[in-house]
Amino acid sequence: MSTDSNHTNSRRQFLRQAGLTAATAAIAGPAIALPMSASPTQNDDQRKVGFAIVGLGKYAQEQMMPAFKESKHAKITALVSGSPEKMQKLAKEYSVDAKNCYSYQNFDSIKDNPAVDVVYVVLPPGMHAEYVVRAAQAGKHVLTEKPMANTVAECQRMIDACRKAGKKLMVAYRAQFEPFNLEAIDRIKKGELGKLRYVTSDHGRQVKPTEDKADEWRVVKKLAGGGSLMDIGIYSLNAARYLTGEEPVEVMAMESTDHSDPRFKEVEDQIHFTLRFPSGVLATCTSAYSIETVKRFRAFGEKAFLDLDPATDYYEHNMTIGKADGEMKPSIKEGNQFAAELDHMAECVLENKTPKTPGEEGLRDIKLIMAIYESARKGKPVKV
Amino acid sequence: MSTDSNHTNSRRQFLRQAGLTAATAAIAGPAIALPMSASPTQNDDQRKVGFAIVGLGKYAQEQMMPAFKESKHAKITALVSGSPEKMQKLAKEYSVDAKNCYSYQNFDSIKDNPAVDVVYVVLPPGMHAEYVVRAAQAGKHVLTEKPMANTVAECQRMIDACRKAGKKLMVAYRAQFEPFNLEAIDRIKKGELGKLRYVTSDHGRQVKPTEDKADEWRVVKKLAGGGSLMDIGIYSLNAARYLTGEEPVEVMAMESTDHSDPRFKEVEDQIHFTLRFPSGVLATCTSAYSIETVKRFRAFGEKAFLDLDPATDYYEHNMTIGKADGEMKPSIKEGNQFAAELDHMAECVLENKTPKTPGEEGLRDIKLIMAIYESARKGKPVKV
Repeated sequence: MSTDSNHTNSRRQFLRQAGLTAATAAIAGPAIALPMSASPTQNDDQRKVGFAIVGLGKYAQEQMMPAFKESKHAKITALVSGSPEKMQKLAKEYSVDAKNCYSYQNFDSIKDNPAVDVVYVVLPPGMHAEYVVRAAQAGKHVLTEKPMANTVAECQRMIDACRKAGKKLMVAYRAQFEPFNLEAIDRIKKGELGKLRYVTSDHGRQVKPTEDKADEWRVVKKLAGGGSLMDIGIYSLNAARYLTGEEPVEVMAMESTDHSDPRFKEVEDQIHFTLRFPSGVLATCTSAYSIETVKRFRAFGEKAFLDLDPATDYYEHNMTIGKADGEMKPSIKEGNQFAAELDHMAECVLENKTPKTPGEEGLRDIKLIMAIYESARKGKPVKV
Repeated sequence: MSTDSNHTNSRRQFLRQAGLTAATAAIAGPAIALPMSASPTQNDDQRKVGFAIVGLGKYAQEQMMPAFKESKHAKITALVSGSPEKMQKLAKEYSVDAKNCYSYQNFDSIKDNPAVDVVYVVLPPGMHAEYVVRAAQAGKHVLTEKPMANTVAECQRMIDACRKAGKKLMVAYRAQFEPFNLEAIDRIKKGELGKLRYVTSDHGRQVKPTEDKADEWRVVKKLAGGGSLMDIGIYSLNAARYLTGEEPVEVMAMESTDHSDPRFKEVEDQIHFTLRFPSGVLATCTSAYSIETVKRFRAFGEKAFLDLDPATDYYEHNMTIGKADGEMKPSIKEGNQFAAELDHMAECVLENKTPKTPGEEGLRDIKLIMAIYESARKGKPVKV
């Protein structure tokens, strides 16, 4: 089975060769000559936007790539990987021509490939900035996974590069394309709960780097940027923002990490944080890497609560609304959030629109995450 | 309908007459002569411990007094109220002899009444210290409602008075006598969740002082000691302690109160707080007076979570245990937590045992509540 491990290992080999710096962006292999007819916007899949998938790890293989099959406007036209075997297998599965397969070394030559409209970066966060900037410099629109990057400076560099290149930049916040979450936002906005008072959200799971190779990079700070907060707690944070529709002005956090646990030598285990919003609404969130999986939130209004549990799962969601006279579970149809996300990016390209979750959205979360870390480290609230 | 309002109003009239100070403890009406045969430990109800109910508000009338009917070892033998009409009605309902009915003025003469073993103080928290001290000085054991008192100093005074008098002091933490909560504590202790990582607990409701007279005193700081945290958030706090079996070493809190809301001129609406325990376990709790009712907690372990929702309701509880392979709802029989609490106090008297929730337990929560308020006020964590 091809796993993130191979992906990570080949990435690591590459990193060892090239160094994990922006300078690696300059390394480019020979460009591959492409016939113009390969352009996806001009062939049978007319109006389908061509995506190059950068990083063929577990998430790309098991969630994102299959979603293209359900997408209306997006298709996979190129692959980028450090593992030729993995790439060959996937190229066959997704009918990607060998000439549209790139290594990390020759990735920059993708600029000459008209089959690629969008570069989708599914690498560990520590590598996002480099590949987003290189993609923008290659004249491609960019979709990047969350968290956007390891630092605020990297996020800004990504935004600047895409702006300079005149290309779209979107951060893949799948929950913002998921029907139950959209319904929750809508019901809160329409006042079904009365005045919103506060939100709680809990996201956690067991990170298992020795059992699941897809988790290896998650405990390496250089690649993951941090621990549970960067990877899964960000769902609590992002939900607090999209459920309230506000931007927090103050954060306060407390961390607890057992550094004798080999998983947590570099990154944090659990971090609990409270956000204060301008309206007076608070959001209290937890994030952990040492518990059985939880992905839930609740919005507390003056007249009712709205619960999603699971809230940010891949395929299963459950809404409960509780009022004084009892609880009800609205009937909402599950939808493919991955395909919706891809279609949105494709539509933004086709219709020259700004994505719903642009680079600035990713930057906001990273700024908040840094403030949360700062609050936990210094033991005091941080204004943002 | 007799409500807490009458209770509060008569209390207020009394307070206006006497001043809300410890000095009022000295005010005593004429003692009522009692025949020895009135002693409940010597008549038909042999071995039943006699309780005097001080404060005949909504909670006393609707929850606690009916529970005596299901109690094995406790019986109501006296009433103390500022409202003669209310007292007369309840004396009839509970077969309390007129000579065992006291006003706040002549309360101290209860010392001469052998029918009373325990004085149960069901007054607003701001009045607990006075009546607990007076009861101890009258040579009676004391059960007092939660929160124990408005201040740490008051709690200490109550503990000291009972110790000096050689009498038991118990704080009525009903959840610690409730079967689902006891089962939760037991399952966590036995390791069913694996190592416990953290706890979340949310307690809130709409305080409605203009609609429900029983809520009038709850928004008066002198009587309530504070807002939602003192009254309902204390369940989150107490649960965090009994679920972990540890005492916190640090607290951090953020408050949000709309002071333009007439309910919140004196007391806080919502306060969110995180407790750090010595083992590294965190507990993150919320408390609010402006939301639809919630009374829930979840314990997050490395292998499973345990959820009680409702956790601290009067009559309805619901446990869910979630593991990697799915969720299950253990079959637990509802039990009368009020009767269990009364029986425990009675047994402590009969068998000369220290209550499970003694004055020191109440004092711990008040110390923590003060630290939570301090943290919110100063905007920094507070060591405890």
